[in-house]
Amino acid sequence: MNIAVILSYDGTAYHGWQVQQNGPSIQESMETSVERLLGQKVHVSGVGRTDSGVHARRYVANFKADCTIPMDRLPYALNSFLPPDIAVSGATQVPDGFDARFDCTQKEYAYYIFPSTLRNPFHERYAYRYNYPLDIGCMQQGAQRFVGRQDFAAVRSQGTPVKSTVRTVFWCAVEPVDDLIRIRVCGDGFLYNMVRAIAGTLVYVGGSKLTPDDVSAILRAGDREQAGPTLPACGLFMNRLWYGHTPELVPFGLDR
Amino acid sequence: MNIAVILSYDGTAYHGWQVQQNGPSIQESMETSVERLLGQKVHVSGVGRTDSGVHARRYVANFKADCTIPMDRLPYALNSFLPPDIAVSGATQVPDGFDARFDCTQKEYAYYIFPSTLRNPFHERYAYRYNYPLDIGCMQQGAQRFVGRQDFAAVRSQGTPVKSTVRTVFWCAVEPVDDLIRIRVCGDGFLYNMVRAIAGTLVYVGGSKLTPDDVSAILRAGDREQAGPTLPACGLFMNRLWYGHTPELVPFGLDR
Repeated sequence: MNIAVILSYDGTAYHGWQVQQNGPSIQESMETSVERLLGQKVHVSGVGRTDSGVHARRYVANFKADCTIPMDRLPYALNSFLPPDIAVSGATQVPDGFDARFDCTQKEYAYYIFPSTLRNPFHERYAYRYNYPLDIGCMQQGAQRFVGRQDFAAVRSQGTPVKSTVRTVFWCAVEPVDDLIRIRVCGDGFLYNMVRAIAGTLVYVGGSKLTPDDVSAILRAGDREQAGPTLPACGLFMNRLWYGHTPELVPFGLDR
Repeated sequence: MNIAVILSYDGTAYHGWQVQQNGPSIQESMETSVERLLGQKVHVSGVGRTDSGVHARRYVANFKADCTIPMDRLPYALNSFLPPDIAVSGATQVPDGFDARFDCTQKEYAYYIFPSTLRNPFHERYAYRYNYPLDIGCMQQGAQRFVGRQDFAAVRSQGTPVKSTVRTVFWCAVEPVDDLIRIRVCGDGFLYNMVRAIAGTLVYVGGSKLTPDDVSAILRAGDREQAGPTLPACGLFMNRLWYGHTPELVPFGLDR
């Protein structure tokens, strides 16, 4: 049977989702826990590669296995084999053809910035601290320039080759949340490091190094050099996921 | 000169405030960073011993040293020698007689409970997960029984002998905060493990194992066996501090 699981993780201690030679990964933890629980070697397929240090408030993965454990008990059983920084919160049987990556229709990432000259120990793991003042109003205006179907070559890092650098961003919202600034970007797909480069570009806009019009021009020119830096991984969370064609996932808080 | 510093720390990796033989302490980190910065061995005196694993959103300490670094630069200088989970946010010169512990007139602790059968990786370090439903209304009623000047012998652990187990609790408030329950207890002083035992007793009240009237009876009888358990350290934060006679601390958000 094909089983989808909903999980979340604090990525601080991991080299990202995907199995790596040089360090622990969330995928490896998941595959090990399934194997220890069910006695079967499985491949656990995830909604996307998250980089080293990136967190997930919500993440979907699937694997094929024989399983007699009721689906509502499976999260507890898997959690007993998982480390405290990874937790499964739901599990359900899905059609054989379901794939966590290819069936995801929309993703939202959140990036957190802590604008302060002084460190806060409770933000260290979960936000990027920025030493200079940021104008949230300017950032909100700049953010609108990322919305729409356009070429995002200017805000990606070189990685695995892709056929096209055109993606659709449905919203890009900048909001104060307590003493942090939260940037949420929702799209139908993301290029490598795209959200971290968007966040870096918005920091430039918030610090008056770029105007909202500059953002549009940089995107049109596809010029990575002119855009802002790729911000550190710690501030990035996979935040929400949509599976438009998979009603089985709706009860777990995944949007259609 | 006598210098007061305001700091915060994630206590997960520490054996509490006080220097210990068997592991790292926040006091040791502070004394080392002052010594490395100023080249002087100092004793850093803290507002109170926090136990192993307990956090501080706000903590006040003081030390006597010769220091030519301006007070507004001292936090940055000290932070450069401190680990990421400890941060100084303010420093000021105080009268020679000032002592962080004895001049503190009032303290507020916060205890966080995550009522859920499933783990959340982002709460693991900062809240106690409780597997069963809790009635917040009952907990709020039970909490009122801790307010006032009374004997708290029923909600303490044996530790350093104390002259009296009578303390004044100014408020004990139970509130939902996102998906957590927060208990805040403010008093003129606290017995060893008192807040963690109050929180454990309120969990019993929230789970109908005790009534608010039982709480009053247990306090009157001074019977530790009848009260709830001492909850784990991870959920506990030193939250707010008052220094009624030290106006120098007011600009740093410390209440008079």
